[in-house]
Amino acid sequence: MAKGLSRLYTQRAKEVQASAIREICKLVTKKEIHSMAGGWPDPKIFPAEEIREIAFKVLTDYPELALQYGPSEGLPALREELARWTASRDGISCTPDNILITHGSAQGMELAAKVLIEPGDVAFVGLPTYFGGTGACQTFGAELVGIPLDDEGMIPEALAERIEEIHSAGKRTKLIYVIPDFQNPTGATLPVERRMRIVELANEYDLAVVEDNPYRNLCFAGEPLPPLKAYDTEGRVICLRSFSKIFCPGLRLAFTIAEEDMIRRMVIARQFEDCCSNMLGQYILLEFISQGLLDEQIKKNCQYYKEKRDILLASLERHFPKTVQWNRPDGGFFIFVHLPDNLDSEELLCDAVDRNVAFVAGAPFYVDGRGRNTFRLSYAQSDKHTIEKAVAVLGHLIKERTAEEREEKK
Amino acid sequence: MAKGLSRLYTQRAKEVQASAIREICKLVTKKEIHSMAGGWPDPKIFPAEEIREIAFKVLTDYPELALQYGPSEGLPALREELARWTASRDGISCTPDNILITHGSAQGMELAAKVLIEPGDVAFVGLPTYFGGTGACQTFGAELVGIPLDDEGMIPEALAERIEEIHSAGKRTKLIYVIPDFQNPTGATLPVERRMRIVELANEYDLAVVEDNPYRNLCFAGEPLPPLKAYDTEGRVICLRSFSKIFCPGLRLAFTIAEEDMIRRMVIARQFEDCCSNMLGQYILLEFISQGLLDEQIKKNCQYYKEKRDILLASLERHFPKTVQWNRPDGGFFIFVHLPDNLDSEELLCDAVDRNVAFVAGAPFYVDGRGRNTFRLSYAQSDKHTIEKAVAVLGHLIKERTAEEREEKK
Repeated sequence: MAKGLSRLYTQRAKEVQASAIREICKLVTKKEIHSMAGGWPDPKIFPAEEIREIAFKVLTDYPELALQYGPSEGLPALREELARWTASRDGISCTPDNILITHGSAQGMELAAKVLIEPGDVAFVGLPTYFGGTGACQTFGAELVGIPLDDEGMIPEALAERIEEIHSAGKRTKLIYVIPDFQNPTGATLPVERRMRIVELANEYDLAVVEDNPYRNLCFAGEPLPPLKAYDTEGRVICLRSFSKIFCPGLRLAFTIAEEDMIRRMVIARQFEDCCSNMLGQYILLEFISQGLLDEQIKKNCQYYKEKRDILLASLERHFPKTVQWNRPDGGFFIFVHLPDNLDSEELLCDAVDRNVAFVAGAPFYVDGRGRNTFRLSYAQSDKHTIEKAVAVLGHLIKERTAEEREEKK
Repeated sequence: MAKGLSRLYTQRAKEVQASAIREICKLVTKKEIHSMAGGWPDPKIFPAEEIREIAFKVLTDYPELALQYGPSEGLPALREELARWTASRDGISCTPDNILITHGSAQGMELAAKVLIEPGDVAFVGLPTYFGGTGACQTFGAELVGIPLDDEGMIPEALAERIEEIHSAGKRTKLIYVIPDFQNPTGATLPVERRMRIVELANEYDLAVVEDNPYRNLCFAGEPLPPLKAYDTEGRVICLRSFSKIFCPGLRLAFTIAEEDMIRRMVIARQFEDCCSNMLGQYILLEFISQGLLDEQIKKNCQYYKEKRDILLASLERHFPKTVQWNRPDGGFFIFVHLPDNLDSEELLCDAVDRNVAFVAGAPFYVDGRGRNTFRLSYAQSDKHTIEKAVAVLGHLIKERTAEEREEKK
């Protein structure tokens, strides 16, 4: 009978909760589930034929490179291509030495946290925010301090107040974690003045900024705003970008843009983590970009997901009661829903899963334990029929619960 | 002018040294270098055509799965296949729940360390041993205690003594890190009695064992010995396996075998690290195994690398002076060289690189700072001509330095 190793686990390993999203996504493999949960893109829009042709070419022309180990920094030619792409699209001045190719942008976050966070260090994060980012900080013992968001994302005045407060209390403040474009989970976009102000605050209080930006290129109206990194005069912003939402997630391709010495530290940390990113994927992406297919693919994606957003918004109007509130995102995958205060979204989720509908309950996005009456809907993975059906089920369940609550009050 | 983030780095990030191997491997990209350095396999033996055909099939038949996110545990069908494969080849009783697919076996090591190591925890490691393993432990603040090796690998009596000593001193002991087959860097193979004894010691002192075993299937004479995991009655052994050396490294495919709850903890840690392994690679490997190609590929590899070992051994006989010692490994990639005590292998490396020959100096393999007169040669990546030429250059340089030393003594 195996005794196992549980007595040897670190305190943190015992405490850490599984990712609510990753766990729910396991449910999603059930064929009959109508999932509005994960931030998984829709495979129907993957450039599968192009990838197949390119993979064949790469594995014919230089398999000895595509199947071999590569540098921990990433494929040099791809780093060059990404430095150029970023400079031209986002107005970030950068060279290949500012680029680290990672195995998903989650790895960029984890490596940044590994380099920056010691137990007790304070990280400032949105209320609510994506718990992948906060989870990586917690892995290294960060104390998380929540900063309220409004319809335009993180509120700089609230951030300034909290930093000053924590700073004055003598705590070691380390970083601000922010998702400026089509925020996860709220869908909010940070205006330019707020972007500039957050960078200024980092300068003033000697902090790093982790700008997590996987949805940036899924902008439904014109060009996205300049990233925080474009306002970074002191090399403080670590910008995480991903190809998971605009190309495909299965090849695990993402990159980090940061000041050269920070990249170097992340590379060293990576040498003892997974050595390097998968090379076949890197070569496929390099060819895809070189053939000029990426910008075209981004346009296709924007059109595709904009239609889904519109379908979801129309369904919500149709099926959700007036007591429920939600936003209208300009890009990305998510709509964030506020139920009346007395309704609990986790209870709603249990009922919903029974009827084969899934979403992500809001509480895990709040580091202060609030948000029990909120939840996140993703329109990314579902077709029109599924969105309609799922929203109808949810609307029905919400109305039922609202009526029950009313009964109880009587 | 960028000020950067260096004041915000953790103490550990400031202290950690880059991986000597990963750094040297960057040199190797110079075309004219004859590298005997990295544990990189020879691309000539990669099953490139088979991989190309399979990739084409996978991307034709189910691109929507191969390009999508997957579970953090790994592709379920591949976990099943690997559980079967391991049970039948290695006599380890395991189910898919004991299997975690990782992005290289380095990630398995890193996740195990993340779950087990808190600052000050003691890990027992070989003198010498692979510094990828020790580096991962150090990332989480482990104190490393070196255990001497002889021609048959880690010496259990020495291990028992040191454990008792450290244990009695009241320190928190956590794990034994061991590479039982064709050890890196010494090439030594641990006999069965030693495998059993190490597991017994883990039971006795409540320790985990990390059995790092990437070279296991490159066994040049018959079947390899049963892994430590086969003697594990209490669920203490975490066995790291890799497809980098027997299939190809560029797809970053490896797996960990461990007790179910330990796997679960590693999966949770992974959710905040890189979410999941690349799916295209996992499907390619699954098809490769299902088509019965893996066992055949392993046989080819064994034959191929055995010839290279023989060429290197013959070259060493021919070119190295009698004052130099080395071993005769029964598998894997490495031969470990002992120079006379007064010669320094890092100085030799500088001279060698000037003449376009690279190897890995021994000191980084010794956590106690010894081993300055040792170095590791890999026969994996070089052809016959390169091996001959590199060894001739090294033999010449060693003789030159020996003569100089003699002169100085006079």
